[in-house]
Amino acid sequence: MESTAASKTSTANSESLVLVPRINQFKIALCQLMVTTDKTTNLDSARNMLQEAADKGAKLLVLPEMWVCPYSHEYFAKCAEELDKEESSQAFSMLSKVARSRKITIVGGSLPERKNGKMYNTCCVFGPDGKLKAKHSKLHLFDYYESAEALIKESDSFTAGDTPTVVDTDVGRIGIGICHDIRFPELAMLYRAKGADLIIYPGAFNMSTGKMLWELETKARAIDNQVFVAVCSPCRDSAGSYTIWGHSMIVGPSGEIKGRAEHEETIVIAEINYAENQLQREIFPLQNQHKEEIYKFLDIERLNEIR
Amino acid sequence: MESTAASKTSTANSESLVLVPRINQFKIALCQLMVTTDKTTNLDSARNMLQEAADKGAKLLVLPEMWVCPYSHEYFAKCAEELDKEESSQAFSMLSKVARSRKITIVGGSLPERKNGKMYNTCCVFGPDGKLKAKHSKLHLFDYYESAEALIKESDSFTAGDTPTVVDTDVGRIGIGICHDIRFPELAMLYRAKGADLIIYPGAFNMSTGKMLWELETKARAIDNQVFVAVCSPCRDSAGSYTIWGHSMIVGPSGEIKGRAEHEETIVIAEINYAENQLQREIFPLQNQHKEEIYKFLDIERLNEIR
Repeated sequence: MESTAASKTSTANSESLVLVPRINQFKIALCQLMVTTDKTTNLDSARNMLQEAADKGAKLLVLPEMWVCPYSHEYFAKCAEELDKEESSQAFSMLSKVARSRKITIVGGSLPERKNGKMYNTCCVFGPDGKLKAKHSKLHLFDYYESAEALIKESDSFTAGDTPTVVDTDVGRIGIGICHDIRFPELAMLYRAKGADLIIYPGAFNMSTGKMLWELETKARAIDNQVFVAVCSPCRDSAGSYTIWGHSMIVGPSGEIKGRAEHEETIVIAEINYAENQLQREIFPLQNQHKEEIYKFLDIERLNEIR
Repeated sequence: MESTAASKTSTANSESLVLVPRINQFKIALCQLMVTTDKTTNLDSARNMLQEAADKGAKLLVLPEMWVCPYSHEYFAKCAEELDKEESSQAFSMLSKVARSRKITIVGGSLPERKNGKMYNTCCVFGPDGKLKAKHSKLHLFDYYESAEALIKESDSFTAGDTPTVVDTDVGRIGIGICHDIRFPELAMLYRAKGADLIIYPGAFNMSTGKMLWELETKARAIDNQVFVAVCSPCRDSAGSYTIWGHSMIVGPSGEIKGRAEHEETIVIAEINYAENQLQREIFPLQNQHKEEIYKFLDIERLNEIR
């Protein structure tokens, strides 16, 4: 069912055409794992789930936001890793090994990264050779005010990243966001403009934002940009006081759900076929119907490169 | 339940502060009427529905896209009006009279407008004094390709408008779009940037796009911009070969449906309270969390004014 083809794709950073090896049709697996207070247990669970998903034929494996520890300030500090020092990072090492041994691409959810005395909420992407292909630090931190005091203030724990991430992999060009990043249509529009086939958001919405926004935002990013969108969450029974919505899902470019979990620990496996993106874009040529004389969307990184 | 207050609001076109009379809480009515092949019948139906909705206490009344005639090229030409010549436009005259006699604001759906030898799909907004407050011509025409040939090609019938429309009314600052305009998140973002409290899209999605996109796009525009969004359609039994989805609805800033029709001829009446916009914006301060160093959204009209 899989076809590997060298297709013409413009690179994210230039107008030139390059040949990108591309599997257009493949299985994606979203590992909605249970996060415990014990990091070693979490590393074992993630490894087992990734291997199980690979056994089932998935070529692109996704972990949730903050899968190494519960979602709380105390654990962030305790479980943080220095991702620039591969040898000292247990998570880095495990993900790299699984990717290489199974020849798969892994979008490694996120974990607390310690770097230059700061803490980031960071996602690592590994290729089938086990090498790190990209690192994305959450751009939009979740500060949530139900009163004058923030109920959840992620910016107390983390520094925000400053770079959008689009990565060319064996299974397509993938834009990466983390959780609250999904609430900003601009980021998804940027990824679409950079040629993304698929946008993946490891996330951990709570019960309130989960019910209200999780599925809706996932579908909106997909239909508005005519791309596949995957969101991957820890399961609800994960440890900690922050109760997680779950409902990892993969949505196609016309908004239809290709696979979805409820809130339990499980692996969602679904088929991605990028021909569906192309079909949607032909039926509804939204990109050609934009009105740049009325509104204009700027990719600042791209502009700075041109200057 | 209604409070009229003079609140400080920046105008759509300048930074200066002006006093805009504002009702913050009021009833909106969406008239999901049946469109027949007879224009006089349609004018009578619309008048009756508007009066019925006004009798029920609605202060803002909305008609659907193309309520004067069936959605087909043949009827567009037959039923078009010259909206710049008030005295000759039956629709203009009727809407103006109802607005004045009932002291209500009407977002008059849309009708085929003949102007300078061209045809536009145009919405007229009337204030409680019966005067025309704004005119919006559909910006994004619906050209829909299921094969190499377009199945529906609105650009064969209409010329696209070239100006976004935000209008200050007694019932808030309202952004106007027509049908396919809703598929462009940029337009809604522009309206939010211009201070819209509510975006109204008279529309007529078909059975395919209706099922796939109607509710999803309505909710997405609302949650992403933290505004109320209303969509108003003719009912499904309307005349013509184009079968209409119906499902007129009003959605609040957190994506909850405030009122919704099925596909039958009916009036949807719901309460709008703009305090909900403010509350959502305080709980989730998305506007302050934007990353203008990564992406930037430009209002070209505004830029041209500054220059």
